Formats: sequence, C-alpha cells, structure tokens
Amino acid sequence: MLVFLTPLGAVLALGFALLMARRVLKAPQGNAKMIDISQKVRKGANAYLKRQYTIVAVFFSAMFVLLSVLAFGLKLLTPYVPFAFITGGFFSGLSGFVGMKIATAANARTAQAASDSLNSGLRVAFSAGSVMGFTVVGLGLLDLSVWYFLLKYGIGLPAGEITSAMLTFGMGASSMALFARVGGGIFTKAADVGADLVGKVEAGIPEDDPRNPAVIADNVGDNVGDVAGMGADLYESYVGSVISAMALGVSAANAIGESVSGDQAVTIPLAMAGIGVVASILGSFLVRTKEKANQKALLGALRRGTNFSAVLIALAAFPLVWKMLGWAHIGVYGAVLSGLAAGVAIGFFTEYYTSDTYKPTKNLAETTKTGSATVIIGGISLGMVSTVAPAIIIGISVLISFFVSGGASNPALGLYGIAISAVGMLSTLGITLATDAYGPVADNAGGIAEMAALPKEVRERTDALDSLGNTTAATGKGFAIGSAALTALALIVAYIDRIDELNLKRVADGLQAVALNVELTNPVVLVGLLVGAMLPFLFAALTMKAVGRAAQSIVNEVRRQFREIKGLMTGEAEADYGTCVDICAKSSLREMILPSVVALLAPIVAGLLLGPSGVVGLLAGALVSGFLLAVMMANSGGAWDNAKKFVEAGNHGGKGSDNHKAAVVGDTVGDPFKDTSGPSINILIKLLSMVSIVFAGVVLAAHLPL
Amino acid sequence: MLVFLTPLGAVLALGFALLMARRVLKAPQGNAKMIDISQKVRKGANAYLKRQYTIVAVFFSAMFVLLSVLAFGLKLLTPYVPFAFITGGFFSGLSGFVGMKIATAANARTAQAASDSLNSGLRVAFSAGSVMGFTVVGLGLLDLSVWYFLLKYGIGLPAGEITSAMLTFGMGASSMALFARVGGGIFTKAADVGADLVGKVEAGIPEDDPRNPAVIADNVGDNVGDVAGMGADLYESYVGSVISAMALGVSAANAIGESVSGDQAVTIPLAMAGIGVVASILGSFLVRTKEKANQKALLGALRRGTNFSAVLIALAAFPLVWKMLGWAHIGVYGAVLSGLAAGVAIGFFTEYYTSDTYKPTKNLAETTKTGSATVIIGGISLGMVSTVAPAIIIGISVLISFFVSGGASNPALGLYGIAISAVGMLSTLGITLATDAYGPVADNAGGIAEMAALPKEVRERTDALDSLGNTTAATGKGFAIGSAALTALALIVAYIDRIDELNLKRVADGLQAVALNVELTNPVVLVGLLVGAMLPFLFAALTMKAVGRAAQSIVNEVRRQFREIKGLMTGEAEADYGTCVDICAKSSLREMILPSVVALLAPIVAGLLLGPSGVVGLLAGALVSGFLLAVMMANSGGAWDNAKKFVEAGNHGGKGSDNHKAAVVGDTVGDPFKDTSGPSINILIKLLSMVSIVFAGVVLAAHLPL
Repeated sequence: MLVFLTPLGAVLALGFALLMARRVLKAPQGNAKMIDISQKVRKGANAYLKRQYTIVAVFFSAMFVLLSVLAFGLKLLTPYVPFAFITGGFFSGLSGFVGMKIATAANARTAQAASDSLNSGLRVAFSAGSVMGFTVVGLGLLDLSVWYFLLKYGIGLPAGEITSAMLTFGMGASSMALFARVGGGIFTKAADVGADLVGKVEAGIPEDDPRNPAVIADNVGDNVGDVAGMGADLYESYVGSVISAMALGVSAANAIGESVSGDQAVTIPLAMAGIGVVASILGSFLVRTKEKANQKALLGALRRGTNFSAVLIALAAFPLVWKMLGWAHIGVYGAVLSGLAAGVAIGFFTEYYTSDTYKPTKNLAETTKTGSATVIIGGISLGMVSTVAPAIIIGISVLISFFVSGGASNPALGLYGIAISAVGMLSTLGITLATDAYGPVADNAGGIAEMAALPKEVRERTDALDSLGNTTAATGKGFAIGSAALTALALIVAYIDRIDELNLKRVADGLQAVALNVELTNPVVLVGLLVGAMLPFLFAALTMKAVGRAAQSIVNEVRRQFREIKGLMTGEAEADYGTCVDICAKSSLREMILPSVVALLAPIVAGLLLGPSGVVGLLAGALVSGFLLAVMMANSGGAWDNAKKFVEAGNHGGKGSDNHKAAVVGDTVGDPFKDTSGPSINILIKLLSMVSIVFAGVVLAAHLPL
Repeated sequence: MLVFLTPLGAVLALGFALLMARRVLKAPQGNAKMIDISQKVRKGANAYLKRQYTIVAVFFSAMFVLLSVLAFGLKLLTPYVPFAFITGGFFSGLSGFVGMKIATAANARTAQAASDSLNSGLRVAFSAGSVMGFTVVGLGLLDLSVWYFLLKYGIGLPAGEITSAMLTFGMGASSMALFARVGGGIFTKAADVGADLVGKVEAGIPEDDPRNPAVIADNVGDNVGDVAGMGADLYESYVGSVISAMALGVSAANAIGESVSGDQAVTIPLAMAGIGVVASILGSFLVRTKEKANQKALLGALRRGTNFSAVLIALAAFPLVWKMLGWAHIGVYGAVLSGLAAGVAIGFFTEYYTSDTYKPTKNLAETTKTGSATVIIGGISLGMVSTVAPAIIIGISVLISFFVSGGASNPALGLYGIAISAVGMLSTLGITLATDAYGPVADNAGGIAEMAALPKEVRERTDALDSLGNTTAATGKGFAIGSAALTALALIVAYIDRIDELNLKRVADGLQAVALNVELTNPVVLVGLLVGAMLPFLFAALTMKAVGRAAQSIVNEVRRQFREIKGLMTGEAEADYGTCVDICAKSSLREMILPSVVALLAPIVAGLLLGPSGVVGLLAGALVSGFLLAVMMANSGGAWDNAKKFVEAGNHGGKGSDNHKAAVVGDTVGDPFKDTSGPSINILIKLLSMVSIVFAGVVLAAHLPL
C-alpha cells in the first residue's frame, strides 16, 4: 500500500505549487513601467517557448511514428513504448513551461516586493521557486503513478515489463530536457554574451541598461534557459533516478529470491519520492525570517529548510526499507544515507570552489592583475582541480552504497543500492529546486529594477538575493551532477540487464544469443570507452560554438541599432528589442538540433557497429568524461562569475578598471561553460543510456557481429 | 638472429647522430654578438639541466633504495628491477641532454646559415634535429639490447621474466620523461608567458627584443622544454612501445602454443625498431632541395623523407612477421600497417585543426574581431571538436589490429597486434623526430637573429623554417599521441597478465589468489574508471597553475628591471638576464615535484585501496580522458598560436590591432596547454601503467580486500 504514497505525493506537490502560485500572483506588480517591461519579457519567453515546442513536437511526432513502426509493425518494442515516450516528453516540457510562466509573472512582483524589504523580496522569489520545484516533482510523480498503476493494475504486467516500459518515458523526458537545456542555454547565453560584448565592453553602458537593444532578450533568456531549461532538466533527473532504481529493483528481487518480490523492491523508490514531497513541504515552511533579516540570516533560513527536509527523509526511509525488504536487507538504507551525504558534500565543494568567500575564487580574482590570459588559465585549472573532490565523493558513495546493500554477496542488490542512493539524493528535490530556481527570478527582478530606474537600494537588494541564489544554486548543482552520475551508472546496469533479457528471449526463439563481454580486456569495450568519452567533448564543443555563433549575430544586430537608431544612446529613442529576441530564438532553435541528434544517434550507431559490449563501453566512457567535464565547466564558469562580482564589489580596482575588464573576459567565457554546455552534459549521459535501453531490441536484431 | 638488428640499429643510429653532429659543428657560428647570445643561452640551459638532474638524481637514488629494499629485503620484486629502473632514467635523461647540447650549439649556426639561404638554414637545423632523433632511437635500442642480451644470454632468463624486468626500465624512462617534460614545460612557458605579458603587452616591444630581461630565459626554455623535454619524452614513448609489445608477445606466444616461441614474438618489435633506424637514415638522405627552394619545396623534401621511411618499414615488416610467426599469423602484419596509417591520419587531422591553411584556424582568427572572450571560446571548442577524429581513428586502428591479428579466436594474439601497431607507428621515430626537433632550433635561431640585429630577411627565413616546423611538428604530435594511447592500452593488458602471473605464484605458495574482475559491472572497476579519468584533469590543472605561478614571478621581475635599471628601454643599459633564468629554473624545479608525485603515487594508493580490479579501471579511465585532454589541449594551443601568426601576417588588422591583442590572449592561454600540460599527459598515462605493473607484487601482498 506504500506505493500509494506516490500519487498522494503528486497531489500534495501540485496542490502546494498551486498555493504558492496564488501567493505570488497576489503580490503587487509595481508601476506601469515595470509592468510594461515584465510583459515584454513574458511575451518574448512565451513566443520562444511556443516556437521551441513546435519544433520539438515535430521531433516527437516523428519519433512516435518510428517507435510505433518498431512496436506494432516489427514487434521489436512493446506497445507501450510510443505512448510512454510522448508522456515523458510532454510532462518534462510542461514542467519547464509552468516554471517559465510563474517566473515571468514573479519578476516584477519580486522587484516591487524588494522595494519594501529584502525579506519580502525573498518571499515572493522563493514562492515562485517553490512553484517550479513542486510542479517538477508533482508532475514527475503523476507521470510515474499513472503509468505504474495503469501497467500494474490496468494491464496486469509483471514488475519487470513495467519498469522496462517506464524507461521509455524516461527517454522522452530526457529528449525534451536536452532540447530545452540546449536551446534555452544557447538563447540565454547568446543574449547575455552579445549584450555584454557590445553594451558593457564597447559602448560602456551598465548591465541591464534599457538603451541596450539585447537587454530584453537577455531577460527572456534567463526565463527560457535558466528556468524552463532547468525545469525540464530536473524533471528528467528526478524521474530518471526513480525509474532506474525501479528497474534495478526488479533484478535485485529476482536475485534475492522469494523473500522479496519485484513489487516490493519497486515500491522503495516510488514511496521515497512521495515521502520526499511531504518532507519538502514541511521544510519549506521553515524558510522565513524576521522582517529585517540580513543576507546571512536569509541563507540560514534557506539552509534550515533544506536540511530539515533531508533529515526527515533520512528518518522516514528507515521504516520504509525495513518494511519492504525485511531486516536482512536493511543495509539498503545505508545507500539512502550515502546518497544524501554525497549530495551535500558535492554541494559543499561546489560552493567552496565557486564562492568568493573561499580561497579559490579569491585567488582567481587576484589573477585579474596580470590580464585576461591569466584569468582564463586560472579559471580552467580551478575547474579541473575541482573535479577531484566530486569524483572521489561519488566513488566513495558508489562503493558504500554497493557494499552496505550487500553487493559483495549479491551484486544485483548492491547495484540496486547505488540506484537507491541517487533517489535518496534527489528525494528532497521539491525544496532544493525551490532554493535553486528562485535565483533567476531574483536576477530578472534586478534587471527590471534597473530598467525601470527604481531606487538604488532595490537593485542592491535584488543583487543580494541573486548572490544568495548563486550559493544555494551551488548546492542544487551538486545534487544534479551527483545524481546524474549515479543514475547514469544505474542505467548502464539496466542496459546490461535488458540485453540479458533479450538474449534469453532470442535463445527461446531459437536464435543465437548476442555475445556480451564487458571486460576491459575486450577491445570492443575499450574502443566504446574511448569513443564514449569523446562524446561529451564533442557535445560541449557543439553547444559552445552554437553560443558563439548566435552571440555573433546579436553583436552585429546591437551594433547596427546603435549605429542606425538616432537618439538611442541619449535615451530619446527606444531600442528595437523584438529583433534581438527574434534572432536569439531563431539561432538557438536552429543550433539545438545537431547536438541533440548526436546524442540520440550515437548509441544506436555504436550499437549497430560495435554491438552491445561496445555500447556498454560507450556509456561508461561518456559517464566518466561527461561527469568530469560537467563539473569542470560548471565550476570554472561559476568561479569566473563570482570573481567578476568580487572585483565589481570594489576589490582589485573595482568596476571599470583593467582588472575588471579581465574579469569580464573570464565571465564571458564562463557563461556558455556553466549555463549551456555543462548542464546539458548531465542530460546527455543519461539520454545515451536511455536510448540504448529502448533501442536494445532493434540493435540486437540488426547489429553487425563484432 | 633477427634480434641482432637491434644492437646493429643502435650502432647505426648513434653513428649517424655523430656524423650529423659533426656536420652541425662544422658550420660557422656567426659574428661575435651571435656567439655571445648563443653562449648565454647555452650557459642557462646547462645550468638548468644540471640542477634538474641533481634533483632527479635524488629522486632516483631514493627510488633505487626503495626498490632495492623491496627486491632484496622483502623479495617482492626481481633483483634486476632497481638497476633497470636506473638505466631507463639515465638514458632518457641523456637523450634530452644530448638534444639540448646540439640544439644550443646549432641555434647561432642556423641563424648564420640562414643569412646565406633558406636551404642552408634548413640543412643546419635539420641536421641538429637528426642528431636528436637518432640519439633518442640509438640510446633506446642500446638500452633495449643491453638488457635483453644480458638477461637472455648472460643470465638465461625465460622470455616472460625478461620482459617483466624490462618493463621496469620503461618506468625509469617514464619517470625521467615526466620530470623533464613537466619541469622543462613549466620553465619554457613561464618565461614565454612572462616575457610576452610584460614585454609585448605592457611595454609594447617586439618578441625577442634584447631589452626584455626575460628574453634569454625564453630561449633557454625552448631548449630545456621543447628540446630536452621532448627528447626524454620520446625516448620513453619509443622504448615503452617496444617493451609493451615484447610483454604481450610472450603472452601471445603462450596462447598460440608450440608453433611460436616467446623469443620469436619478442623479436618482432625489437627487430622492427632496428629496421626502422635503417629506414630513417635512408629517408633522411632524401631531405635535400635545390639551393633556391621555396617553403613548399622544403616541406615536400621533409615529407618525402618521412614517407619514404614509412614505406620501407611497411615493406620490411612483412618478411619479418612471416619469418617469426609463420604464415598462419601473418595477420599481425596488418597491425603494423594499421599503426602506420593511424599515425599518419592523426597527424593529418592535427595539421587540419591547427594550421592556418585550413578552415578551423582561419575561423578562429576571425573570432578575434569580437575580442578575447570569443577567441577563448572558439579555441576551446576547436580543441574539443578535434578529439573526434583521433578517437575514432585510434578506435578503428585498435579494432583492425586486434581482429586482423586473429584476436577473435585468440585474444592474446589480438592484443599483441595492438601493441605491435604502436611499434609500427613509432618505428620511423628517427626521422619523424628529426623533422620535429628542428623546429625549436629554427625558433631559437630566429631569436638570435632578432637579438643580434641581423638583416630582416634572415628573420624572415628563420620564421619560414619555424612555421614549417610547426607543420611537421603536427605530424610528430600525431605519432606521439597515437602511440601513447596504443602503448597505454597494451600496458593495461600487460598489467592484467602480471596479476594473473602473480596469482598463480600465490596459489603455488599456498596463498589465496586476489580476485580480478575487470567487468564494467564491477563497481570497483567503475570507481577506478572515474578516479582514473579525473587524474589527467588534476594533472593538467597542477601543471597549468604551476606555469601561472612561475610566470607571475617573471612578470614581477621584468617589471622591476624595467623600473629600476635606468637606460634599459633606450638600449643604453643591458638587462639582467641571469636573474630571470634563475627564477624560471627555481620555480620550475619546485613546481615539477607535486604533479610527478601524484602520478607515481596514484596507482599505488588505488591498488592498496581498490585492489587490482580498481587499478585496471583507473588505468583505463586515465587512458581515455588523458588521450582526449592531451589532444584537445595540444590542438587548442596549436590553433591559437597559428591564429595569432595569421593575424600577425597582416590579416584582420595585423600586428598592433585590437584583434591582434585578442589573438595574443589566446596564444598565451594556449602556451601551457600545448607545451606543458598536453604533452605531459601522454607520459602520465603510460607512467601510471608502468608503476602499476612494477608495484603489482607489492600491492597484491598488501592490498585491502575490496
């Protein structure tokens, strides 16, 4: 019956999101100027998402047809696959859409609230973040529940076939997330980089100055990239971790024997996600402070909320594991704790390497004295060094999860433990995402304050909120990256299980089993490993180049407007914001295709050429190099951003100095690192596995014998 | 008897090197000013290498004591290990030393010869490069011969024990190479970056201007980094590929059974190296042109030489393989061809991505229009994209080598084929290294021409030679990187063989065998993979940071001299060159310790904590991520360098323009990428394997049971 916690969690989460949305919408919108700007941003974001979803719909329709042919025509897939694929994509997109809607509604309101006090600003922004956080988990649990109950009670499938059908909606969610992250990431960074390069560097006008024609595009970008992209992304992470744990749960139950059923093993991740919602809602009530709180007190409030939720989950998971697996396998509970601890630890190191309160970023700010080249060298090496701790933490967490769950005597159980640790890490996503998603809202509020020429202290308050958001976002990133690695690892195992299963069927059908040898001495595995490790490099390059090209178009357009629109610099004429939004939208939609196609085709091509052993190598290679690159790019970017802010706060010569110019170069390079390529890689490594699993049957039927 | 080709090759190579050295020394040294500068450079380089070798000697003595204790006290190693370790280090160091000696003798002579004609300049520089190339292969073959004949005919060991002792001298060579590459790489780039940052950017004086106090240090750096470092590096690559092929040859012969003996399998790599010397000497006679040749004709001459040598090897390897393995295993010959082809193909793509005659670097030069940030983003994504082709080429080469050698039915034979393909790739090292090593000589000659105020056309000619050198160096890098990947792969297999062997001994001694499960489903392997993949990132970061810190000291010193030495800028007073050389030497020697210690300790610590399965994961992870990072960093750096030269040649505004300044930032970031971190990683991935193999016995005896 514990499995009913999942739909219950879905209802609670969506209800809470609605409540928070009402609270946001009740807040006053500010003066006419603010409403006007906010509407422009909203219009741009809406228009962009509409176009993005249109293109994505074409892709999903084509995939639906392809999957239907494979499922109904060639019988290579189960009949649920095409439908599950669509729902995953739909809910992932919806998560992003809702997040964007509330964020664009909240930006002017946050600016207005910040006119009263820092704390009021926080409350509006955090409420908006909560809408996003709880919508993501609510929709995730809804999709999980509907499919689980339909397949189990409606159709009566055994646990193994249920999880294998449900992996398909993970693939749908990942595909959508990749489009949203890549497209949105290119949009936001092209606008940001383009606006900075001409506005700040060439024309010497401040950030968010209304005279800059790209300023609305920049704000639209925050909403479609940092908000809608992040929503789709974390939806994918969330359901991905649950589904992969369900899949490995079935294998673990089979390996254990009669004492534990597949249903019981599957219940743990589902129920834990449901409990996580309750814990997150309770935790978010703690995020409140006195009216006159300073920044440190605010951070304390946010921390209190997330920590409380984590403790609740840690307590509730114990009886859950005990009840489902029995005392003999209580060790799996250790995996939950290890996942939670790893998430917190990675978050700490992310903050350590990217916050200007610690040495690394301070030292990076110091390098501005010798010019931009040393800033770049310093930032890249900082990012590279910052991979050490997360790699070791994930390593320790994997080993602990595996061995405490009993992997030494029963590997399937140990691998299930690893997947459960990812679920543990993400179970409090409702609240961690709320603390993460409120950052872009505050950022946007700052932009509106600037453009609407609100008093200086308003901008200072939104900046304080924004900077606070950077810190909490570091923790959020820790969870996102850590869970991506653990989930991807679980999915590799799920892929191997899937191949074994298909091979049994082949043998039963009188066909030869396809050899699967995943030893590192198998050259096919090694070649897969090398090619797989190369994919994140290719992917990062494609997305960065895309940002570069799109930014270039914006630079040219802004230069043109400065040149051709008379009176723009003196404030007598208004800039043509729409064209910049339009250019960003067009470029980012065009540029998001190629990276996504690479991600979808690579595992299929590898499967056809190298066979399943090569695919396992490919997935493992992409996992390790992708994890490291994602950490490196996120932390280099974060540190550059904060080093620049540190200089702007008056250190090393402050704003306008040569040091500041050098810091801006670092920040500009860091933009696509941290907001386009880095986060997309997290999705990539999971999508590769999901595609491999879904197309495993096709690949086995058609692969060349290597 | 074919094995006698190895000592014969050693004698021929060293004799040819001597001949070439005489030819260089016969050339006139130029005027008094040139002799004076050349002597300063020579003195600085000598002094540095003396200090470096002193520190390295301490390390080698300590290791000798440690290895002796393990060998003679605890009986965990064979008694040859400590001595073999020392000789490997000694010859690797000697290769670098001889290269440096001849390069510092040739720089002024090349400048003088270039006063006559481009072709005369080429002949002196190429002769100097040949001294280096043939010294490296000559000393390599000498060391190989001495140990092989001593262990085989002197002591009468079986083939298996011979190769396992000889792997130790590979470890000695790799350790020395790492010190030389890292130390020299830090020296040269600290001087270069420091000189550029203050001289070019701040003071606005041209490169190699004698008023710049760091100019001599910069030239010294070319000799201790690009020459001595490269010599030690390629010595290590060369013997590493031969030894690993020997080791796998023994396993292959065991797996084949009676028809092929271990001695026969071992003979192929040894004899092929010997034949390679003959092929290289014959090829180098083709490197000559008409007196009035243009640059294209010169490149043609160089290409003719290397291609001819490659064809000779391809022809000679056929009867060799046939004779040694019999017609049944002639497929191994296919591995030789595949190695040669892969080296050429990677070289082509290196050139494609880094030469300004192709689109990628041209496009990179284009990004200078929008400032340094876009130059950095463009260069990094170029480097990342450039990993695709090499990864696929190595992948194809591995599969071809494995399967044509008969790996499908006999994996040991297939793995031997992979190792042989690396030997094939490096067999013509004598001549490819000559075409590679002459570049720094020409570069230095240009510096001397500038400082001695020789006529403008001399500098133009040395620049032409230098730029030609960049092109041929690209091919050289292709071979170095490709062979590193293949050799490292072979060494992983050799490690597994070693563990199997030790386990047999343990069982014979009544001990329990240590479990070895290298499947990717083993979490210990996955954790090893992740941590191993992280090591090159850490290593690159440490070396880059070291360059940054050392460059910082140079910047401060140069600024001090500009400030305090009156009349320096007007040319009335001479700069204090010695202090800059001294600072570079001190910093680089201090900074080379930590990265080297990491490389040596990581596999031992991993072995103790994770056991041999974890070590295999670690080695595979380091191999794939190291290969990709090395390619990326080398190509980003090369492209930035050439994009800057492209701008300096008058494109996009030419010298002194804002675009040029942006290009200089790229070049400065690229310096440690391509000349410090990138090449060191190639050594790292092999050293990790060698250390693992040598300490395998110790680790098995002491490891914690995971």
